[in-house]
Amino acid sequence: MPLRFLTAGESHGPSLTAILDGMPAGLSITPEIINKELTRRQQGYGSGGRMKIEKDTVQILGGVMGGETTGAPIALLVQNDDHVKWKGKAVEPMTAPRPGHADLTGAVKYGYKDLRPALERASARETTMRVAAGAVCKHFLAQFGIVVGGYVSSIGEIQTDFGDMLYEERFTRAEESDVRCPIDSSAQKMRDEIEKTIHGKNTLGGELEIVALNLPVGLGSFMQWDKRLEAKLAMAVMSVQAIKGVEVGDAFENAKRIGTQVHDPINLQHANLQRATNRAGGTEGGISARL
Amino acid sequence: MPLRFLTAGESHGPSLTAILDGMPAGLSITPEIINKELTRRQQGYGSGGRMKIEKDTVQILGGVMGGETTGAPIALLVQNDDHVKWKGKAVEPMTAPRPGHADLTGAVKYGYKDLRPALERASARETTMRVAAGAVCKHFLAQFGIVVGGYVSSIGEIQTDFGDMLYEERFTRAEESDVRCPIDSSAQKMRDEIEKTIHGKNTLGGELEIVALNLPVGLGSFMQWDKRLEAKLAMAVMSVQAIKGVEVGDAFENAKRIGTQVHDPINLQHANLQRATNRAGGTEGGISARL
Amino acid sequence: MPLRFLTAGESHGPSLTAILDGMPAGLSITPEIINKELTRRQQGYGSGGRMKIEKDTVQILGGVMGGETTGAPIALLVQNDDHVKWKGKAVEPMTAPRPGHADLTGAVKYGYKDLRPALERASARETTMRVAAGAVCKHFLAQFGIVVGGYVSSIGEIQTDFGDMLYEERFTRAEESDVRCPIDSSAQKMRDEIEKTIHGKNTLGGELEIVALNLPVGLGSFMQWDKRLEAKLAMAVMSVQAIKGVEVGDAFENAKRIGTQVHDPINLQHANLQRATNRAGGTEGGISARL
Amino acid sequence: MPLRFLTAGESHGPSLTAILDGMPAGLSITPEIINKELTRRQQGYGSGGRMKIEKDTVQILGGVMGGETTGAPIALLVQNDDHVKWKGKAVEPMTAPRPGHADLTGAVKYGYKDLRPALERASARETTMRVAAGAVCKHFLAQFGIVVGGYVSSIGEIQTDFGDMLYEERFTRAEESDVRCPIDSSAQKMRDEIEKTIHGKNTLGGELEIVALNLPVGLGSFMQWDKRLEAKLAMAVMSVQAIKGVEVGDAFENAKRIGTQVHDPINLQHANLQRATNRAGGTEGGISARL
Repeated sequence: MPLRFLTAGESHGPSLTAILDGMPAGLSITPEIINKELTRRQQGYGSGGRMKIEKDTVQILGGVMGGETTGAPIALLVQNDDHVKWKGKAVEPMTAPRPGHADLTGAVKYGYKDLRPALERASARETTMRVAAGAVCKHFLAQFGIVVGGYVSSIGEIQTDFGDMLYEERFTRAEESDVRCPIDSSAQKMRDEIEKTIHGKNTLGGELEIVALNLPVGLGSFMQWDKRLEAKLAMAVMSVQAIKGVEVGDAFENAKRIGTQVHDPINLQHANLQRATNRAGGTEGGISARL
Repeated sequence: MPLRFLTAGESHGPSLTAILDGMPAGLSITPEIINKELTRRQQGYGSGGRMKIEKDTVQILGGVMGGETTGAPIALLVQNDDHVKWKGKAVEPMTAPRPGHADLTGAVKYGYKDLRPALERASARETTMRVAAGAVCKHFLAQFGIVVGGYVSSIGEIQTDFGDMLYEERFTRAEESDVRCPIDSSAQKMRDEIEKTIHGKNTLGGELEIVALNLPVGLGSFMQWDKRLEAKLAMAVMSVQAIKGVEVGDAFENAKRIGTQVHDPINLQHANLQRATNRAGGTEGGISARL
Repeated sequence: MPLRFLTAGESHGPSLTAILDGMPAGLSITPEIINKELTRRQQGYGSGGRMKIEKDTVQILGGVMGGETTGAPIALLVQNDDHVKWKGKAVEPMTAPRPGHADLTGAVKYGYKDLRPALERASARETTMRVAAGAVCKHFLAQFGIVVGGYVSSIGEIQTDFGDMLYEERFTRAEESDVRCPIDSSAQKMRDEIEKTIHGKNTLGGELEIVALNLPVGLGSFMQWDKRLEAKLAMAVMSVQAIKGVEVGDAFENAKRIGTQVHDPINLQHANLQRATNRAGGTEGGISARL
Repeated sequence: MPLRFLTAGESHGPSLTAILDGMPAGLSITPEIINKELTRRQQGYGSGGRMKIEKDTVQILGGVMGGETTGAPIALLVQNDDHVKWKGKAVEPMTAPRPGHADLTGAVKYGYKDLRPALERASARETTMRVAAGAVCKHFLAQFGIVVGGYVSSIGEIQTDFGDMLYEERFTRAEESDVRCPIDSSAQKMRDEIEKTIHGKNTLGGELEIVALNLPVGLGSFMQWDKRLEAKLAMAVMSVQAIKGVEVGDAFENAKRIGTQVHDPINLQHANLQRATNRAGGTEGGISARL
């Protein structure tokens, strides 16, 4: 049975929890490894005030004994530090639904009169537990040399040109950047754009790239619709709050091109099959294709 | 338990099959309703020679009695008419993997020496059974006034401007167009582009839009990652052969904008909540939001 | 999507947790409702010393606001009170596998050197969270008049004859009995048997009956193998630690009989279909059949 | 993703189909291997007239090329030979529900006026496709030396005492017996019992034992409720038409005993762990435990 996980908890509830089921036994893991990712999540230029309030730290409540996973489901808990502030306080019911949020759809679906339960659960605060569970998975993949990284490629109209910069370098530079952008000149423009938007009491879109390096060939399959790697990745990415588009490789650009400009030719070199390009984003026929 | 389906069959095998499990009882359905969609699938400017060889017609082998679904799984079968031509013939093993296909990844994953099994199953021919199963679902949704339609919005670099054209009209015009494009002037340019590409022995990308009209509010949920409507739609769309990108609404364009240009304001008019715009693509917080 | 749940936590870990996903919004629920079932779980004649150590009480960490479910996943946590005793203490590795436990199979499957992780997770202590999650479900079903009850029908060789005693009375009497047996004379023999077994430093098997009253007709289906109500019930029952057999109705006795002694004749009385007997256990054709 | 399958088709429809998804590539398989099991299914003392009408043979419509599985879903089809007899004929609506069948529950659940759709799909005829799909799985397991066999242990009140007869011998003898009973003296009594029951226009229950030999240790897990091998087996067994009880090992007998008479002691012999008994049925802690 594959990995699966459930998260629970509200934005201002006592705590957020997750159960990650299916992690193999024998992986060394500590709260610090997870906390590092939680801290990354809470940083970022112009991030909301909430990010400053919470200093998230995880408790591992199950699945780990003596610093090692046992194969049992891993229970993770992050306390909401400001819960005590809210606890027991009378809170005005929220009745004006905000567009672009779950306020109205949540109320219609679940019959809320006060909209608060919708925003409490639909909140991006929930991603805390995805990051926590994901941190364990990322650490597991790292044992096999697989590196999963990401960086911001655009904010508003500010696009970034990465040129030939290697992915590893993009990851490193993004970590050092408060807007997670590997290119300094673009990063400065992004900060300006963010400042301008905050000043206008508005919000701003953007794009990010996620890359997994050193994957084995053979993940996913074309054999049945729900086995395709692109399909599973698309679902995972689109399940994140506020994300409404996903592409593998330069799919939307590739859609404008002819086949020979889109595919990655396979060359036979010294008895090895190789490819000089990566336009398809690393998958072919629903399967990971090492480059 | 929700609807589920499996397909089987190879491009040049005896037949393609599907089992669609979970359709309610009492739906009037005939092979003709499904065949209509199969015929739509086989048309299209510049479609491959295979499309001309096969005149697909479905046999309903289970789940329908007296012209009505019984609630039992629906078994669908489409014969490959050219199978007899291939049957028993010696076929040269295929050993040169084509980029942009499942040839190489399939061989690595499944250990093929002859690549043929990969292309036989990864082939777009498999979509025949998705169309057949989908035809039943589309017909079911139609009983509730839900219309699912689609059209081509770009081929290669030829983009289409739909202006204020209503979705119903786009659907109708697309049906009358051999390139499935509702705008005649764009359609002609698309044909030219296709001709040029065929002449150059190449292939060409494109974009299409799928729209479901009259959906109830409340499909999907923000309560758990795998319940979000956008996530499920993204998986379904990306599971189709050759599709590598998906967006809900103008997501990639919206990513360049500020929030007030992206959201769909909610207005209270005569005791009804209404929205004048549809930028978000009809979902909010992972839930369908009627407009 | 149907109800689903995951549990996590070890017998001597800091706490046990569960996430119950899919409960509808609007159900009034309190920790007390769950604690009542947790207390029931901890009682019972001859129950282990551990039962006396723990006085389980649940914390609801998500999915409930203002005393009502919101439709969000419900997070439940029960602390292991004796965890502090064990924390940080050096514990001898356990290396002698006990038969009838997960010690050996767990070690082989997960590669343990110290067997402790197997017994920590395979322990019946895990049922605490099944009871907690089940308590919410039971309370939900109660809103529709559905009563789920149970009682002990045999311990060791002591069998019970319930005669014509109504199920409701069996439930009530079982609650009042420290061996959960509705018939006093049998209960006394069971206590004697248990005493004798404890004295002999042994353990003892038994049988229990679970009954759901007032179920609607139509749960489950014969349409696909994994939709049959009996199949789902069997899986649920057999997933409980130490249970290795399950029957619906008097299945094993019925296997010795001819059809007319096993089926429940359907009688038409005053325009209603009725049945005078319940030999089949309340299901026919994989579907609940109200009697 | 694990193996999964769907079946479809009605008892008197044109054909029965199944799709088995997830079988690995490279397994040699022929229709004959499957037909052999279909023939076994159609034999048996006192089996219905239908068994004589149909001489089931399978067509493999997908997933197999050149006599080998390709990893693609395997499509199986068995024609109902008597369908032509029924086709187009006016058939009286069936309105009197039979107890012990899906007639009444099916009608209530699916809203049938004519009960025929219920009995057409709920019919044991559906097991044809389970046998066909199972034949492929059984053949796959055989490549690893795993033997799955079964035999009848009781019919009505006729019980069988197998003494020390090895499982392999039980399998062989059962194959040679028209009542699938390995012990001749019991078999004769079973035939008499069947004759008497047929004469009385009645039906008769029974018990069977299924054994898998040479399984590896480690199938299933105690880590989460739905991973336990016993739970999965119970669901599979109880999903078969007419089966309403299941036990692993002598579970119901063991329930009467003390622990030391029920468990299978683990002995260390020449650096190997061994067990002299098999009372638990080959599983411990939800995991297969080789004996």
